[in-house]
This record gives sequence, C-alpha cells and structure tokens, in this order.
Amino acid sequence: MSAESRFLTLLRLLATDPAAQGLADDVAVLPIADRALTLTSDTMVEGVHYLATDPPADIGWKLAAVNLSDLAAKGAKPVGCLLNYALSGDDAWDAAFLEGLGEALNRYGLPLLGGDTVAMPAGSARSYSLTAIGEAGAAVPTRAGARAGDILYLTGPVGDAGVGLALLLAEPSASGPLVDAYRRPRPRLAEGALLAPVAHAMMDVSDGLLIDAARMAKASSLALVIDHITLSPALEKARGGSTAVQIAAARAGDDYELLVALPPREKPPVRAIPIGRFNAGAGLTLMIDGAVVPLPDRLGWEHG
Amino acid sequence: MSAESRFLTLLRLLATDPAAQGLADDVAVLPIADRALTLTSDTMVEGVHYLATDPPADIGWKLAAVNLSDLAAKGAKPVGCLLNYALSGDDAWDAAFLEGLGEALNRYGLPLLGGDTVAMPAGSARSYSLTAIGEAGAAVPTRAGARAGDILYLTGPVGDAGVGLALLLAEPSASGPLVDAYRRPRPRLAEGALLAPVAHAMMDVSDGLLIDAARMAKASSLALVIDHITLSPALEKARGGSTAVQIAAARAGDDYELLVALPPREKPPVRAIPIGRFNAGAGLTLMIDGAVVPLPDRLGWEHG
Repeated sequence: MSAESRFLTLLRLLATDPAAQGLADDVAVLPIADRALTLTSDTMVEGVHYLATDPPADIGWKLAAVNLSDLAAKGAKPVGCLLNYALSGDDAWDAAFLEGLGEALNRYGLPLLGGDTVAMPAGSARSYSLTAIGEAGAAVPTRAGARAGDILYLTGPVGDAGVGLALLLAEPSASGPLVDAYRRPRPRLAEGALLAPVAHAMMDVSDGLLIDAARMAKASSLALVIDHITLSPALEKARGGSTAVQIAAARAGDDYELLVALPPREKPPVRAIPIGRFNAGAGLTLMIDGAVVPLPDRLGWEHG
Repeated sequence: MSAESRFLTLLRLLATDPAAQGLADDVAVLPIADRALTLTSDTMVEGVHYLATDPPADIGWKLAAVNLSDLAAKGAKPVGCLLNYALSGDDAWDAAFLEGLGEALNRYGLPLLGGDTVAMPAGSARSYSLTAIGEAGAAVPTRAGARAGDILYLTGPVGDAGVGLALLLAEPSASGPLVDAYRRPRPRLAEGALLAPVAHAMMDVSDGLLIDAARMAKASSLALVIDHITLSPALEKARGGSTAVQIAAARAGDDYELLVALPPREKPPVRAIPIGRFNAGAGLTLMIDGAVVPLPDRLGWEHG
C-alpha cells in the first residue's frame, strides 16, 4: 500500500459526512436548500503534475481545466472557484499563469471568487490548488451506478496527452495537437451536462482509460469488457495504430474525456464512441481487433 | 508595491463576479437559492506560516482554525471543507497532522468533504490548503460597514500568539498558554454568530490588531481611534504591561479574535471589550493610558 493510500485510509475516518461520499469520488456533492453543489479541488505540483519548462499560461489553463473536468463528470454547471497560488518570484511568469487561468475560467464560465496567495521558501517546488464549485442538475451520476448490459461510451480519443508529454520530454520545444492535448485539455462541460440526465455512471478519464474504466466497473460491482480504443488522427499519424500503441493510449493519463455508462437502448445525446459493455461479474477484459489481449501491468496512473 | 500586491492587482481583473467582493474581504459570499454561502481558503507553508519544528497535530489544528476564523467573522455556520495535502514521507507525521486537523473539525463541526493529496519533490517546503464553506445568516457583515460613532470591540486579548512564537523561536521546547495561543488558536464561531446580526462591520484579527483595525477603518472610509489594548494575564505575567509591550501586542499576528463595530447603544451579546471609536475622517490614532502614541512603522503582517 502506498503512502497516499495509507493517508487516504486515515482521511476517510474524518470524512464521515454523506456529502463526502467516502472520498470514493473525485467530487463531493453537497445539498444546499433545493440545490446540489458539487465541490472538487485539485493541486498541481511543479515537477510532478507539470514540467518546469511548461509555459506558465498553459499551467494556469490546465489547473482550471482539470477541476472543470471533475464538474463536467457530474453534469454540473460551473459556479465559482478559489485559487491557492504560490508566487514565483517572477512577475511576468505570474502574469502569464493568470492569463492562461483566466482564459479557461472565461471560456467555461467559472468565476474566480477568492483564495490565498503565498510566497514559498527559495528552492521549493511550487504548487497550485484550485477548488471549484458547481451546481448539478436533478441527476448527479457517480462512478458506481453502471448496470449489467450498459454500454460504456467515451466522448473522444485517448492517448494524445500521453504522447504529447513524451514528445515534450524528448524535446521541450515540441508543439502540435498532441502537445496541445497535454497542455490545454478541454473539459467536456457541455457533453457532461447533456449526458448526466441519461447516464447510469459517469467519470472523467484523468489517470488513464483502463484504470478509470476498471474503477467504474469495480465501484459498480460489475465486469467490463473494453473492445475498442479510439485513437485520434494526430496520434495515428505520429505513432501508427498497432496494438502496442492502442494499449499505450489506453493507459496514458491526462485525457479528460468523459467515460459514461448508458443503458443499451439509450442513444448518447452527444458525440461519443461505444467502447465496451458491462456484465455481471468482476474484472476488466481488454479486446483489440476482436481478440482478448493481456492487460498491461500498470493500467494507468495509480494514486494508491 | 510587493510581488503579492502586484499579483492581487492582476487577480482582481479576473475576480469580477459580485460574490468575489473585489477580493477586498477574506471571504467570498455566494448566494445559492435563498442561502448565502461563505467561502474561504487559506494556505500554510512550512517555514513561512508555521515552524518546521511545530508538532504536526498543531499544524493540522491551526489550518482548520484559521479558516474557521474567517467563517466566524461572517457569523457563518460551518458547512464543509476540502483539504489539499502534501504528503510528508513520514506516515506518523501525516497521521498526527490529521489527528490535530480532525480535532478542530470535530470541535467546530466542519465536515471534511474532499480535496487532493500530492507528493512533493524531495527537499521542497510542503504546503497545505483548506477551503472552508459556511452558511451565513440574514446579516453578513463585511469590514466596510462601520459608521461614524460606532464603538470598536474585540472579543479577547491580543499579542499572546506573537509572544508564543517568540518563545518558540528562542526555545523550540517552550510550552504554556502563550505557545498554545500560537499553535492552537480558537476560532470565535459562537461569538461571530451572535455578533453578526448586530454588527456594522466585522473581521478577524489575523495580521495584527493595528493593521486589521486600520483596514476596517479604511474600508469603511472612517477615522479610528484605538484607546485600549487588551493583554491577557499570561502575557502581562511574561512581559509586563508597558507601552512597548502593548504596542508589540497590537502589531503581533495570529490572534484570531473578532474585531467588531457596533452602534454606540448596542450592548455586545458576547464577552467583548470596547477598544476604540470610529469617527468621520480618515486614519488610525493609537492612545495608550490616555495619551496619543506614535504608530509603529509596521502595523502588523503586511501582505501587499
């Protein structure tokens, strides 16, 4: 068990309020009057969640986007956010960060309401947190509601951000759509809002398709067969479409597409690709080109 | 202008939503249905906001307490919080931090709802953020509502935490009520809830009595005379009650008492000491033992 996993075990002892949902979801759901507020918070650490060489505007954009993606997975409308910022000691860097953050906040309508600004001791990695508040509709999907027979859909291709990161690690000045996918993820807010009323289960793909889909199946106490992995034209052009490339795409993180379980007769109200099916039982099976393939040792980014 | 001050200028350009209150307050006030939610977030950085030698349980307690104090200043009832935690690499340290945090959350009824846990690169100072949500009553005092003739009250003595910190810097094993005041501040939630309906203005004293009172006067476009500085028996015993000690107490931070402006005929509904009076005009005047004394160069902890 990892240190984070041990810590979460202790944290769950404190998080006994029903709104915390046992910390089993990325988002807390808090009833206020007749509304359901969705609360989420993500921290990005220099050298861990982004590259020190990433442009500051992209880091700011991504901090907003990863939180907005959690709201999208609940079909929630953005309401407001609070920023915890560590000053860089470089005014131009800070200004560029805020420019990118502000672009994402404006694009997706998430007002900045407050937060805190601190200075770090010299030599420390900096970290940034954003806490986002959304308002969900009548239906608030969790990752636990899939039913046997449900079809698993994905709102877009996976793997672009993972290859974008690999390109940047090889060459910091790399650019193009795959690098953009890594640096400027697009939270699927419109898709989430339209899918939430019909979804049995929904979550965003942040740690990798295989690991996140396996989590949905486990939370729903079901088996899952994934029989299709969607690659973008840009990724196929860069890497081809071999089984190895498909598996790499399915375990890469940072995609931020939505993964949604719909009843078999429900036509998705947005562009979404059927990639698998839930069945009674347990466990994840991966099929590529009609044949079962062994699962990779690591399904994605493991937190615990 | 400091780096933080320049950053806040840029941040205000993003924080245009009315709920952000122009970032002029510690707390955002967000209307949801017929309720007023209060949102606040504070970050504590190792070596900046606490001593690396502080017991982890006390750091956890204080992180909760400083956020709860912001809710108290709005007369708000705690609703829930999200924690952004940087793993220490030492399970016992992390567990002790959570124990202290949990003690404060339980004591003041602030449920933990979610957050994020990250690992920092080796050698980095760690930082912790807590975002707290409260629900305010019908009256939500700001720091800007004081009127000429109002009396300024303080819910308790100031300076204890500042002397506690000085004792710890001289001797890390120091203990006693002054050290406790630094490490285990008590947010004035009950006092805040009772004062909010009658207060013209209210805020907590986190950066020092003089600077925070001056901010209230400035925000209210008034002059303020402070003619009394309340010291605790423990502080008087340790340092005496000289003018220098009183001034030091009035510019020390981390007290977390409430500062409240009440109309002259309003008797405070809780224990609170009258310490001054608002008048038409501008500026802060300090009187000790009936005589005006020059203001110190630094009124307290300056953020900007």
